Amino acid sequence: MEIKQFDARNLAMVMDFYEMTMSNGYFAQWKEDGRARTARVAFDVFYRKNPDNGGFAIFAGLEQVLDYIETIHFNKEDIDYLREQHLFSEEFLEYLSSFRFTGDVYAFQEGTIMYPNEPVLTVVAPLIDAQLIETAILLQINHQSLIATKTRRIVQAADGRAVSDFGARRAHNMDAAVYGARAAYLGGAAGTATVLAGQMFDIPISGTMAHSWVMYFEDEYTAFKKYAETYPDATVLLVDTYDVLGSGIPNAIRTAKEVLEPMGKRLKGIRLDSGDLAYLSKKARKMLDAAGLFDCKVVVSNSLDEYTITSILGQGGKIDSFGVGERLITAKSDPVFGAVYKLAAVEKDGVFKPRIKVSENAEKITNPGLKQVYRIYDENGKSVADLLARADEEVDLTKPYRYIDQTKPWAVRYFENCTCKKLQEKVMEDGRVIGERKTIAEIRTYVDRQLADEIWAEEQRFENPHIHYMDMSPALYELKMEMLTSFRQGEV
Amino acid sequence: MEIKQFDARNLAMVMDFYEMTMSNGYFAQWKEDGRARTARVAFDVFYRKNPDNGGFAIFAGLEQVLDYIETIHFNKEDIDYLREQHLFSEEFLEYLSSFRFTGDVYAFQEGTIMYPNEPVLTVVAPLIDAQLIETAILLQINHQSLIATKTRRIVQAADGRAVSDFGARRAHNMDAAVYGARAAYLGGAAGTATVLAGQMFDIPISGTMAHSWVMYFEDEYTAFKKYAETYPDATVLLVDTYDVLGSGIPNAIRTAKEVLEPMGKRLKGIRLDSGDLAYLSKKARKMLDAAGLFDCKVVVSNSLDEYTITSILGQGGKIDSFGVGERLITAKSDPVFGAVYKLAAVEKDGVFKPRIKVSENAEKITNPGLKQVYRIYDENGKSVADLLARADEEVDLTKPYRYIDQTKPWAVRYFENCTCKKLQEKVMEDGRVIGERKTIAEIRTYVDRQLADEIWAEEQRFENPHIHYMDMSPALYELKMEMLTSFRQGEV
Repeated sequence: MEIKQFDARNLAMVMDFYEMTMSNGYFAQWKEDGRARTARVAFDVFYRKNPDNGGFAIFAGLEQVLDYIETIHFNKEDIDYLREQHLFSEEFLEYLSSFRFTGDVYAFQEGTIMYPNEPVLTVVAPLIDAQLIETAILLQINHQSLIATKTRRIVQAADGRAVSDFGARRAHNMDAAVYGARAAYLGGAAGTATVLAGQMFDIPISGTMAHSWVMYFEDEYTAFKKYAETYPDATVLLVDTYDVLGSGIPNAIRTAKEVLEPMGKRLKGIRLDSGDLAYLSKKARKMLDAAGLFDCKVVVSNSLDEYTITSILGQGGKIDSFGVGERLITAKSDPVFGAVYKLAAVEKDGVFKPRIKVSENAEKITNPGLKQVYRIYDENGKSVADLLARADEEVDLTKPYRYIDQTKPWAVRYFENCTCKKLQEKVMEDGRVIGERKTIAEIRTYVDRQLADEIWAEEQRFENPHIHYMDMSPALYELKMEMLTSFRQGEV
Repeated sequence: MEIKQFDARNLAMVMDFYEMTMSNGYFAQWKEDGRARTARVAFDVFYRKNPDNGGFAIFAGLEQVLDYIETIHFNKEDIDYLREQHLFSEEFLEYLSSFRFTGDVYAFQEGTIMYPNEPVLTVVAPLIDAQLIETAILLQINHQSLIATKTRRIVQAADGRAVSDFGARRAHNMDAAVYGARAAYLGGAAGTATVLAGQMFDIPISGTMAHSWVMYFEDEYTAFKKYAETYPDATVLLVDTYDVLGSGIPNAIRTAKEVLEPMGKRLKGIRLDSGDLAYLSKKARKMLDAAGLFDCKVVVSNSLDEYTITSILGQGGKIDSFGVGERLITAKSDPVFGAVYKLAAVEKDGVFKPRIKVSENAEKITNPGLKQVYRIYDENGKSVADLLARADEEVDLTKPYRYIDQTKPWAVRYFENCTCKKLQEKVMEDGRVIGERKTIAEIRTYVDRQLADEIWAEEQRFENPHIHYMDMSPALYELKMEMLTSFRQGEV
């Protein structure tokens, strides 16, 4: 075995091996009926539970999903490796060597607020094409949606103060730092400390000094002085290496007075990275103000998340911005985002036949067939529900529209004076991305706008949030019930 | 801004931006005294707390750390990006463009059982060299040590049964799946489902079918039959798509009898992926045995970890192997591994002057100076303690050796009839890796051997494990106390 360069990899091979064993199995079926290659299937991506028992999640990672699908291919060394497993036919390996994805993808716009049990992405493609991309789609959406959603919670707790991602060193390896920073920015972070993320995605980066800078020089004041001389326009001093109130802040003030002010510059900020941040920030603010440094910002860091930030601010902490590391970049309180990829329909003679996955747990039963998701808005533009409908039906809200609440299917309910928007749009056709690539700043603004204008505040609170209504068109509900009641082994 | 290929990246840029601002700042100091470039420093990597309140952790990720350090460099586009930040001197950017790491690295052998507060890796290098590699070292060791340690706990709970990593789809992006699989294997997993990890690291891979395979065919039996015909020597059937006991197992048995046995083949296994795994596995075992399929393995998966596995086995679950996904690959119960990188010494006129980081919290005070770590063994070869000593002293255990227990420094204690092993060895010299690269199988065996032969069982239990003794040589203790008691601002 040859060891690959640590920074060279074919992402196509980041897949569960069963995608390959199934694909080779499907390929083998062609000998009998030839349909596997040409007939298409539809797979839905959806998740079942909001992280941290929150009221929503943010759909993130679509750009990387599409990059992955558009470029998926297998090199000679990949084929050789697969051959060594002694499970695959030479015809299949030959087929893989020229494989390109040829299907269509429908998805929510990246950054859309999403809810459990609605298809946020649907792949319509030949069976093998759809199968081979499963793992990477889930991995990417699970990771980025997790971090974007977690970040949003932290940003919300910070209540208007900047939150920056400082998490790289505790990330679950390189990509988790880089794509985690992307997701955090999209979720509302002001920037990141991770340089490659800034470079790749045009995210603002920031960073000043570690304790080692302060420890390297003979004393704390010298360390501060040297830094201020190097960065007179961007001096933020880390004040907790020795003694925050006894030496850190006094030395920072002395640096402002003796180094910066003679140059006509101001001390931009101080950073606290340990201790009682509520107490220390209040004391620091007073000392800075007493020295006339009203414009000097107080930045804090150290194992922060939405809960500690809420607590610190509740105690009157005087803080201008938060550096948030390990608990953001690992989504520590709930680090698993559980999107799944389920077969919804199989094409037969040009018609998509719905499929359903049955389960003893009602919430694990899938929604069959090709579908569309509508977001329903009241006359104030607030989103009151999402509606799942069959793809082949028309949803007309110009008159009262009867929908089914799955939890109370007997109730007769209508959307009245509402408008709606289709959430899934075609983003890939015949394996090629269509539409404009959004900038990350546009996606971030879109997230903000939805949460400010469309999404009820009651869905955004941490404790017992309102559960977004997920309704169904009568036609889809009927199809599902029909499939469930007529369900017998062999007739799905 | 130009968007990079999703699979092309310069890992050198995965760093906290402050590594750059500090390095540029140090570079600027040369104008004054020229010492920053030539004088070396020593940084220690250590962590403070075992994950999940366990008794130990596994040191993992060294191979990738060394790959990273050996190849770190900055391309023209990286330099251009840094220039755009308007913080760095042209001289510094010029210096970066031909930067290579020129220092030495000392480390524990990969796979070594490690404990809090001992330097598992020490970088001795010019200041900028040492600074630039901080983030990547921490990220890599934190991630892989986390997953290796978590996996070991799961493997231990499985009590001799195979544990396979099925986690890719819930990993925190691509690298977390791939290097997580590496760490899991090293920690004792039998293999992984992640193909690229198998390819890169020579880890056994496995994978059979998803629910979509079963749903794709007209009925469950047909799906099983097709699979068995394709893989007669490796048939493992997923039996929970519709109804485990009502259809899944009966159809699996029928497949064994009607498809495999006429070919002279045996059904290799069934997999349960939902429901009450303790109950269903016992029922499944009975049904399989009643059909004469004594050799058919029962594989289970679905949100498993060391706690659920312990519970299932405690209830008499009849299971041969476990597929473990999200809770392994994210280390869900404790997803942050907190190794840090602290300045221990600064070279001045050819002599390393120790540095100490003071803190109100006693456990956050660092151990100063260049050090060596010894593992102490009793006459049975069991590891009784680790000993931190100064690098420049001789530890001689041929006669009773007095050590200091930091928690009871007044106590007079001796190691008697003990032997010891130095744990840090030089692994990089002048920026080049030295010594043989271990195969992952060798590292895995080394982990196993230590836990079987050297490490007390009392340190391996989940509840209130024995806390490994971390002692000090009198000389190191004296140095630390001297620095602490004489500590005044400006005299560190």
